[in-house]
Amino acid sequence: MENKGDIFVISGPSGAGKTTICQLLLKGVKNLVFSVSYTTRPPRPNERDGVDYFFISEDDFRSMIYKGEFLEWAKVYGHYYGTSVSFVKEALEKGKDVLLDIDVKGANNVKRLFAQAVLIFILPPSLEALRQRLFQRKTDTEDIIEKRLKFAKEEIKNCKSFDYIVINKDIKHALSETLAIITATKARRDKKWPYVKKTFHL
Amino acid sequence: MENKGDIFVISGPSGAGKTTICQLLLKGVKNLVFSVSYTTRPPRPNERDGVDYFFISEDDFRSMIYKGEFLEWAKVYGHYYGTSVSFVKEALEKGKDVLLDIDVKGANNVKRLFAQAVLIFILPPSLEALRQRLFQRKTDTEDIIEKRLKFAKEEIKNCKSFDYIVINKDIKHALSETLAIITATKARRDKKWPYVKKTFHL
Repeated sequence: MENKGDIFVISGPSGAGKTTICQLLLKGVKNLVFSVSYTTRPPRPNERDGVDYFFISEDDFRSMIYKGEFLEWAKVYGHYYGTSVSFVKEALEKGKDVLLDIDVKGANNVKRLFAQAVLIFILPPSLEALRQRLFQRKTDTEDIIEKRLKFAKEEIKNCKSFDYIVINKDIKHALSETLAIITATKARRDKKWPYVKKTFHL
Repeated sequence: MENKGDIFVISGPSGAGKTTICQLLLKGVKNLVFSVSYTTRPPRPNERDGVDYFFISEDDFRSMIYKGEFLEWAKVYGHYYGTSVSFVKEALEKGKDVLLDIDVKGANNVKRLFAQAVLIFILPPSLEALRQRLFQRKTDTEDIIEKRLKFAKEEIKNCKSFDYIVINKDIKHALSETLAIITATKARRDKKWPYVKKTFHL
């Protein structure tokens, strides 16, 4: 167990800033790797296959479900999203920390399988701010945005299993709070103990 | 419960750098107040009554014990040290976070009475480094230093109830790790939930 990595799960409503925070974390935290999700939804402009998502067909996705290749998967707004179990396990065994950007239901499933996973919920400062961000992003129709807002409220209610809540009022502050959560996790007694035991000949 | 403060307990062997870390935390973290301990030991050069400690007589200390005025107290190397229960309670009720610099036994007592207290153990990078620091400090005789080193090893073994371990190899890094622990504690779901509930009308 000594050198095994940790799992950090980032969840939160669309438009809360999850993707930006994940990208900045990956730049700033050595030893952290991103678990690229599989999805059947079409790529947005600038999204790259194998980097942002693995974009696959519904047939291929269903086949992976049947083979038990997902740690968690979900169907959201008609599209499938899933996390590869083998990717996560291999990374942890190499001592890497794994970052997941998944929905609340998926996060709860990960926590059930990996009790030590650290769940972080990213929130906008208000529902009104979220609405503005979704409109500014121009990737969704008005109809989808209203659906997302309704779903956001449901998700917020259901974040009871989460360890931390970060309110993304400004990105700099939200990032430093998320970094603090990662740093504190690595400073937990059970993580440091093997090193201490060895260093002090206990 | 909504606006109540948190307790952060700093423990660790003499010479690990607890005092410096506490002083820097108090400068850098707003809302954090230091619980000034009572002691019967004579002040060191530069120590001020009411700031570093309340320096009192053994008779007065014993009288406070009998009146139940200590949250925790201990006798170390022939001197008494104690934390005022009324100071801590009043600060918490005002919503202040309280910083305690006490020994492992005292820390365990605090955790028994305040389960939410966050215990942080500060360690030197090695016993050899600790020996050097104690010699450089020139406040103890060689005999006392050897006693401190022996006691340090015992304390390290007994830090099992601690939440976090910070290794003070360089002060900048140790400080930022301790700050991260405080930031992460304030981002815990149960701390943020009242604010989230109100903001999102849940």
